[in-house]
Amino acid sequence: MSFLSAELEPLPGYPVVGMVGGGQLARMTHQAAIGLGIGFRVLSATPDDSAARVTREVMLGDPDSVAAASAFARACDVVTFDHEQVPPATLEAMAATGTPLRPSPDALIYAQDKLAMRRLLERSGLPNPQWAQVGSAEEATAFGEAQGWPIILKTSRGGYDGKGVWLCRDRAGVVSAFESGYPGAWLAEAYVPFQQELAVLVARSPSGQAVTYPVVRTVQTDGICTQVVAPAPDVSTGESGRAQSVALRIAELTGVTGLLAVEMFDTGDDVLVNELAMRPHNSGHWTMDGAMTSQFENHLRAVLDLPLGDPRPRAPWTVMQNILGGEPDMYSALKHVFAADPALRLHLYGKAVRPGRKVGHVNAYGDELDSCLDRAVHAADYISGVIDE
Amino acid sequence: MSFLSAELEPLPGYPVVGMVGGGQLARMTHQAAIGLGIGFRVLSATPDDSAARVTREVMLGDPDSVAAASAFARACDVVTFDHEQVPPATLEAMAATGTPLRPSPDALIYAQDKLAMRRLLERSGLPNPQWAQVGSAEEATAFGEAQGWPIILKTSRGGYDGKGVWLCRDRAGVVSAFESGYPGAWLAEAYVPFQQELAVLVARSPSGQAVTYPVVRTVQTDGICTQVVAPAPDVSTGESGRAQSVALRIAELTGVTGLLAVEMFDTGDDVLVNELAMRPHNSGHWTMDGAMTSQFENHLRAVLDLPLGDPRPRAPWTVMQNILGGEPDMYSALKHVFAADPALRLHLYGKAVRPGRKVGHVNAYGDELDSCLDRAVHAADYISGVIDE
Repeated sequence: MSFLSAELEPLPGYPVVGMVGGGQLARMTHQAAIGLGIGFRVLSATPDDSAARVTREVMLGDPDSVAAASAFARACDVVTFDHEQVPPATLEAMAATGTPLRPSPDALIYAQDKLAMRRLLERSGLPNPQWAQVGSAEEATAFGEAQGWPIILKTSRGGYDGKGVWLCRDRAGVVSAFESGYPGAWLAEAYVPFQQELAVLVARSPSGQAVTYPVVRTVQTDGICTQVVAPAPDVSTGESGRAQSVALRIAELTGVTGLLAVEMFDTGDDVLVNELAMRPHNSGHWTMDGAMTSQFENHLRAVLDLPLGDPRPRAPWTVMQNILGGEPDMYSALKHVFAADPALRLHLYGKAVRPGRKVGHVNAYGDELDSCLDRAVHAADYISGVIDE
Repeated sequence: MSFLSAELEPLPGYPVVGMVGGGQLARMTHQAAIGLGIGFRVLSATPDDSAARVTREVMLGDPDSVAAASAFARACDVVTFDHEQVPPATLEAMAATGTPLRPSPDALIYAQDKLAMRRLLERSGLPNPQWAQVGSAEEATAFGEAQGWPIILKTSRGGYDGKGVWLCRDRAGVVSAFESGYPGAWLAEAYVPFQQELAVLVARSPSGQAVTYPVVRTVQTDGICTQVVAPAPDVSTGESGRAQSVALRIAELTGVTGLLAVEMFDTGDDVLVNELAMRPHNSGHWTMDGAMTSQFENHLRAVLDLPLGDPRPRAPWTVMQNILGGEPDMYSALKHVFAADPALRLHLYGKAVRPGRKVGHVNAYGDELDSCLDRAVHAADYISGVIDE
């Protein structure tokens, strides 16, 4: 492993933050790091990953490997991550360098391991759906018979963007899920007939300062987040306060440093926790243009133990729509989209287009939700090539 | 010359913009380039210049030199600049590569040469102060006797941040200015007893689309811009419209592509043009947090001939205050400043501190001008070490 170009001498007095992983979350974190004047390094698998394309200080290496990750940790004052699926041995080797990891492995476990997360919530009285650890198709079927079908089967580790998760309507579905052969422990959860999916983003620093962003609505398509509405419509003040309290309590219980995203189901008058992430999150991309401090800046402030920035919204409504490739000639599409909507905010990730791959997002903010929805959906569809006018 | 690291293969279909110069304007332009997904390269004199510290694609070389600048132009689809003082031979060599320069040398001349600028405004009926070309202390003294003292003496080329400009109260002042021995042509201008200094920023694309930002107040200290208030207070709608019309007309007359900043004197009920710049400008730093599209993004959109972004303000008032070094331990100062004002926006330039050097700026936006002024001045003074509480 070595840096792509000669290592920069850090500016005297400024810390160097290292982010493990070269994806779009690292790319947008770098954008925020520029204003803070700090050093920012990424550990990237290839020289043209999303973040590596725009960051001066790129260390090339497999972010999962013990050797690369520990060499990277030694080159930074504090290390953070653009994903949670870091192998335990790699985390251990990085921690052994003495460089603080934020979040710490002790916190990260709750975003890596769904059984650990469910147990923590249960013993803390936080709102889980009905769930059970299941070791076989028989146990999962028994859970389905007892709770009622359908159920959700999940692997405890390794799931992402809908992978490692199955909606099972009966015993045959359960058997088919287990035939995937995913290793490790599994859990079954009751299917929650939710009204909408919500997410709450918390930034928490090592000193224990924490702020929450407004509760947002997330819309998933085929397991991938495609739209976020901030703030979430049709949520009472009480329910919104409850969702934020749950998220803050999870931040405190897990001891997370940096960002925590708590995905929840809105059951009408309450919330149930679905998943946790400990990093900048798709549900927070709206903050780049819609909040007083972006999630990326607050992630950096949190991992540096700097006082956190104001998380309040800057507009009554902000809609984030992901751009999925799609049409390969996205750049030409910008002319039409920018001409149609000069207020539209665009964030592309510098990624080659493949069908269904997240290659960017747009934000539309304003006073009227319907108009923001129309603008964001139109722009994303046009850039993706789904529509041509 | 070569790139600091292996050249990146541009993403298919996306253009590569090159910026000549590695200062803070290139640094903040890179920040805006990230979201557009385009390639962005800088030609930087050293590997740790402000922009070089944060940009992946850095070509090392003297931005003034014919060899470096023309090699750089060949490596880009379009070239722009973070400063105007590019030697004519260098511009010519870059133009000869066939890569479009935006602004073009034909436009840039009006930002490089104050006599050319005064003549253009005069023949177009645009508001100049009284002025004359002067070849000697005698001619300048005669101008002072005729117009009344004091007068301003300027070198036609090469002035910057108060250099190459003298306020002369009498013949002795004139003689002393000429003794500086600055080469080239000189001009004398009547001293304008202005109420405030204003600036208008225009973005103009090769297709001729142009937008203006709101008229702002600029405050200079020792010839260096230290504060900007957006929009300018105490300016009538009529005067503000007049200032914007003048700036748009200059953009059209010069054929500028990219940004044009027109600095003006507010004489109470009219404006007189003071200086032109053709690049992102200190008077536009407020747009990063205070406008719907930052000046840096609109500069890129303009040089790429993409439709321009909405230049309207996002808050009733935004105050930009420059941070001048100063106290060397600026990073520690951030803890206090961020804790005191979670809504403050910070933009540091990654530059080592030297007394009086611009090392960053802060933006404070809100509903009350006085509060924005207090917040911005306090933060900049604290970070600079001028105050300690």
